[in-house]
Amino acid sequence: MAPRYDTITFLSDYGTDDEFVGVVHSVLRSLAPHAHVVDLTHGVPPHDVRAGALTLARSVQYVAPGVVLAIVDPGVGTARRGVAIEVLDGQAVFVGPDNGLLAPAVAMVGGAGRAVSLTNDEHHLPAPGPTFAGRDVFAPVAAHLANGVPFDELGEAVDPSSLLPGVVPLTRQEDDRLVAEVLWVDRYGNCQLNVDPDEVEGLGERILLRWKGSTRTGVRSQTYGDIPGGQVGLVVDSYGLLSVCVDRSSAADELGLAAGDEVTLEAGGPMVTPVELRTGA
Amino acid sequence: MAPRYDTITFLSDYGTDDEFVGVVHSVLRSLAPHAHVVDLTHGVPPHDVRAGALTLARSVQYVAPGVVLAIVDPGVGTARRGVAIEVLDGQAVFVGPDNGLLAPAVAMVGGAGRAVSLTNDEHHLPAPGPTFAGRDVFAPVAAHLANGVPFDELGEAVDPSSLLPGVVPLTRQEDDRLVAEVLWVDRYGNCQLNVDPDEVEGLGERILLRWKGSTRTGVRSQTYGDIPGGQVGLVVDSYGLLSVCVDRSSAADELGLAAGDEVTLEAGGPMVTPVELRTGA
Amino acid sequence: MAPRYDTITFLSDYGTDDEFVGVVHSVLRSLAPHAHVVDLTHGVPPHDVRAGALTLARSVQYVAPGVVLAIVDPGVGTARRGVAIEVLDGQAVFVGPDNGLLAPAVAMVGGAGRAVSLTNDEHHLPAPGPTFAGRDVFAPVAAHLANGVPFDELGEAVDPSSLLPGVVPLTRQEDDRLVAEVLWVDRYGNCQLNVDPDEVEGLGERILLRWKGSTRTGVRSQTYGDIPGGQVGLVVDSYGLLSVCVDRSSAADELGLAAGDEVTLEAGGPMVTPVELRTGA
Repeated sequence: MAPRYDTITFLSDYGTDDEFVGVVHSVLRSLAPHAHVVDLTHGVPPHDVRAGALTLARSVQYVAPGVVLAIVDPGVGTARRGVAIEVLDGQAVFVGPDNGLLAPAVAMVGGAGRAVSLTNDEHHLPAPGPTFAGRDVFAPVAAHLANGVPFDELGEAVDPSSLLPGVVPLTRQEDDRLVAEVLWVDRYGNCQLNVDPDEVEGLGERILLRWKGSTRTGVRSQTYGDIPGGQVGLVVDSYGLLSVCVDRSSAADELGLAAGDEVTLEAGGPMVTPVELRTGA
Repeated sequence: MAPRYDTITFLSDYGTDDEFVGVVHSVLRSLAPHAHVVDLTHGVPPHDVRAGALTLARSVQYVAPGVVLAIVDPGVGTARRGVAIEVLDGQAVFVGPDNGLLAPAVAMVGGAGRAVSLTNDEHHLPAPGPTFAGRDVFAPVAAHLANGVPFDELGEAVDPSSLLPGVVPLTRQEDDRLVAEVLWVDRYGNCQLNVDPDEVEGLGERILLRWKGSTRTGVRSQTYGDIPGGQVGLVVDSYGLLSVCVDRSSAADELGLAAGDEVTLEAGGPMVTPVELRTGA
Repeated sequence: MAPRYDTITFLSDYGTDDEFVGVVHSVLRSLAPHAHVVDLTHGVPPHDVRAGALTLARSVQYVAPGVVLAIVDPGVGTARRGVAIEVLDGQAVFVGPDNGLLAPAVAMVGGAGRAVSLTNDEHHLPAPGPTFAGRDVFAPVAAHLANGVPFDELGEAVDPSSLLPGVVPLTRQEDDRLVAEVLWVDRYGNCQLNVDPDEVEGLGERILLRWKGSTRTGVRSQTYGDIPGGQVGLVVDSYGLLSVCVDRSSAADELGLAAGDEVTLEAGGPMVTPVELRTGA
């Protein structure tokens, strides 16, 4: 049996304060010592399948070919299936729970090829309890795939169309307003919207933002540093989506925005230069 | 000199906000470039030797053969010894402070073989100050071991029976009650008790929990998802111990439990289905 | 083209809750699979160039030869340059923004050799937006350097003397007092001062500390464990600088100290043994 994949990319909601991530690494190291593990992040909020799915979708085009091990699994041990899904003619395989976590990323790279339910426990570890499938099921399966175990040995084939779809919220137009949603607040407090810049092309350089009873004008800006002092910027972020930002400060904190919040966008007023009270530089 | 170990597993209380972990990795990379480093966790609470020892004990059976570098060391620079301990006929070596951190894990894999005090500073780095033994003593020793430096060159042999034992709390029976302790609260708020499921076999499916003046009934459940809504579950966790859990929420937050808290368990009353006020799904 | 560097050491303010670090790793893995990546830390406070520069300076002497990728970049996408700087006759190359982040570490290893501005976008990735230069510019450049791309192909040569210098605060003497500054508060709450032990040699074993209206006496101590109970210690830390510490507790929390705070040091009074009310050990 020849090694087939030499990279395993790993995402979870395990955090790094406990040993969960390290134990999964240990299992991978023991079973597939040739494989290199890239940690995408383990900071997905606990049980937040949607946040994990969006994180994976944002990252997937940069991920090295190989196995993608993704675990955000509040239903661990229940009837939800563990699955492996081939994409890109087998250049990569996603391994994780069938709960919508994998679906958006799978779709972004062209959709599912073959899929199996991980029912063959010959490729699992014996488990003292059913609650750590990352260690006992998903990591061993990822390692065996890297080692060249044939895909269809992992369990029963499943129809890809039966896999649970992911939920990616779409914008909608209501009269003159685009109703959008905060997809993600990053470490810097930038609030990514589910808005393609094309959708707001007609709204001008100043766009009125409304959310939870608040209103602010967002100024279209090329970079964070270009946002006028004290104002709210609308920057096309590194994933090509519109994000609500403040220069060197947290827009989320300043505006009270969080992932999942609804934000509407409409044409703003004419450009008004704020009175500049400061003197000097 | 032929490389002897190709995996170094690393646990500490260093956190990852500072560069401590990265500097240790740099030292290992410089001295033993062939060795692969697995980070078990660096999120052990600062100075918490007990938490570090329990983390290591939970993980050790999954750790790849090689060097285990473990550092939670509030007494760094004082008279406490730095030690290396062979286990499993030399398949693995533990390196760290002799303060009880290593003892439970060493015991779990069959007990100490040879042990040395790390007194030979030829295998250390020059230290600008005595406070970062991880960088200056333990990491170089781990690297040299991986490179094949003979175990007994690291310092004076010590009698394994002189190593500081770890403290793993035991349950005790008081009348009809089992007096237990919270060993660990994980990221999800699950509270692991020092209770083997066998110990509560006679108590039935509903077990009365008492702690710090509070009382709740815990329902024996197979998985987190099986815990009835709004109730407290008792799940055999992934290490085979009983843990106090709430589905998709933090039992620690909800019940006010923390590591080290005493919890008593006794037979609960008959099964009572809570009145279901919600309609629909 | 032969691989030139086999280690890439990576520091940033990205945190690990988002996928930024993982995506950079993925890019490095895809472009330079032979290279080993050491994460120094990603916990630099967001946008804190000074903290990042000090972290890099503390670590640099331990970093393995190769590429040092350092990103704390509040001006990303603006006119600030991205640069690569050779040091130690090409044994290592720093890659990052020219904003003072790299300067103190470059100075510590002997100063800049050649430097280039990263203007050749053949060695970058196509970017959906200008805000993630780590992924689109710095990581690809680091990978190409590791792969052996000649240094001067990365862009226009720049005069090393034009690079933005870093700001490392110096102490000053005012009458009998040494005016110092807290450089860094570590995970344990130890407060590193910008004070070489030589500077306080004449002040004796007890040194009066004043900051923000508060006064405490610091006792010179060899290790944390040697600090008398309930007192403040002055320990030469692992970087050879004086630090304000409390045994097994956070000096920063207890004294209300933070990075950047001014602290003055002067000769303290005679040794006074605190009344010991506790009995036994």
